[in-house]
Amino acid sequence: MDRIDFSISLTVRVSDLNYGNHVGYQNFFSYFQEARIAYLEKIGYSELDIEGYGMIVGEANCKYKQELFLNDRIQIKCGIKEMKSKLFTMHYQIIKEGVICAEGFTKNLCYDYQAKKVVRLPDRFIERIQSFEGKAQA
Amino acid sequence: MDRIDFSISLTVRVSDLNYGNHVGYQNFFSYFQEARIAYLEKIGYSELDIEGYGMIVGEANCKYKQELFLNDRIQIKCGIKEMKSKLFTMHYQIIKEGVICAEGFTKNLCYDYQAKKVVRLPDRFIERIQSFEGKAQA
Amino acid sequence: MDRIDFSISLTVRVSDLNYGNHVGYQNFFSYFQEARIAYLEKIGYSELDIEGYGMIVGEANCKYKQELFLNDRIQIKCGIKEMKSKLFTMHYQIIKEGVICAEGFTKNLCYDYQAKKVVRLPDRFIERIQSFEGKAQA
Amino acid sequence: MDRIDFSISLTVRVSDLNYGNHVGYQNFFSYFQEARIAYLEKIGYSELDIEGYGMIVGEANCKYKQELFLNDRIQIKCGIKEMKSKLFTMHYQIIKEGVICAEGFTKNLCYDYQAKKVVRLPDRFIERIQSFEGKAQA
Repeated sequence: MDRIDFSISLTVRVSDLNYGNHVGYQNFFSYFQEARIAYLEKIGYSELDIEGYGMIVGEANCKYKQELFLNDRIQIKCGIKEMKSKLFTMHYQIIKEGVICAEGFTKNLCYDYQAKKVVRLPDRFIERIQSFEGKAQA
Repeated sequence: MDRIDFSISLTVRVSDLNYGNHVGYQNFFSYFQEARIAYLEKIGYSELDIEGYGMIVGEANCKYKQELFLNDRIQIKCGIKEMKSKLFTMHYQIIKEGVICAEGFTKNLCYDYQAKKVVRLPDRFIERIQSFEGKAQA
Repeated sequence: MDRIDFSISLTVRVSDLNYGNHVGYQNFFSYFQEARIAYLEKIGYSELDIEGYGMIVGEANCKYKQELFLNDRIQIKCGIKEMKSKLFTMHYQIIKEGVICAEGFTKNLCYDYQAKKVVRLPDRFIERIQSFEGKAQA
Repeated sequence: MDRIDFSISLTVRVSDLNYGNHVGYQNFFSYFQEARIAYLEKIGYSELDIEGYGMIVGEANCKYKQELFLNDRIQIKCGIKEMKSKLFTMHYQIIKEGVICAEGFTKNLCYDYQAKKVVRLPDRFIERIQSFEGKAQA
């Protein structure tokens, strides 16, 4: 799962800008989330429902390389590189006119809101990711 | 600079909540930023003016341990552990009723917006941090 | 119900600022919402549960008189002036150092999310408001 | 200037949702702002520069008719109906699949940030609006 093949596109809005007149550093994580949600939707899930569990973020990281400004048209790529029994890692790139402006990852877990505990990644969820990532890279 | 001694307190607002009815993962970085700005102000600076330069974020990281909810009263600690010639690392903890809910860091750089390039950390800035962190830990 | 007696206080955060380095006009409505939620909590309700119904906003209005800046300490007053069978009007003022910076109102309705329709304001809700506003003005 | 002919389109993002899992009422004003900025850009201006002045909002109003949800594709129409010497009124509609979900207006002023006072609308600005609105309705 080396390459990142899934992507969405969006345009930087005025409400994404901070007091420095560029996109605030936290909003890169909002862009990651837009891509993550679209990815999950693609394989039949949402952050609020992965085989009945919620998806939570255990860790988030972003490396910033270029500023983003109002009306910038950006592409957000994401893919899943690594899956463990209770955790999967999603990788992200934000690209503007062919240039990588930011790279990051999130470590995600499945959470049972009833039992209030982290659960193993559901088998069907793992299979769908493997199938999707496999096809994406075929 | 092992301990984190500077802190601010704030209350989780409804606009910090996401569609899952808890604080969105990107907003933990907003909380970090509130603390960072207060820290900089304490030593006479702002993100927009560090001896004439701007402060930018090169990398941001957060590990999430507990959810945060509406009206939660939280403490955000921050401190500077590491300084290199062009980069300093700020560490953060978000604490609710004595429990660490999140931990993270940002790597920060000084940026010359005129020349459009990263510059060495100004000597006076380094001195003020060392003086502040020294006192904080005395 | 002429006077506005209920209020909360908060401090302008960096994430409230827009690209003009002052509080964005939409965020005044976020401040109104903070006060509205605190008011509802005071009388035993939340926006998500008013005798089993949700509270929705039918109209919102704000008149802006002064800019708000980072770290401004503001007071947000709110009260309910007018109640009809299906609608109540909440009034707001944002005050900084004794000066009114903004005034506005929201018209609010109770919504049955199951039946997907607006319902009459519950009697107990009306009574609690009348009791609270009466006491507030006694 | 009766009809509203200028419009932009955008997709509701996850960060537009509030704790009720629909678009928060303040974010309708963010959508208005996106349209307003696009309109101003169309006639050669920005909120930060109208013949050297800034554009500020004196009043904002929105009437809500339908909820908006994640991934909703919406059209935001805007136009200028009324111009006085120091004030112009912009009207907005948010439309989803042909249905008006919200309507509102903002009253806008030109502000001299140096002199810290409201100024008359610049002649050239008035002319450009009249020309644009005239053409739009021809």
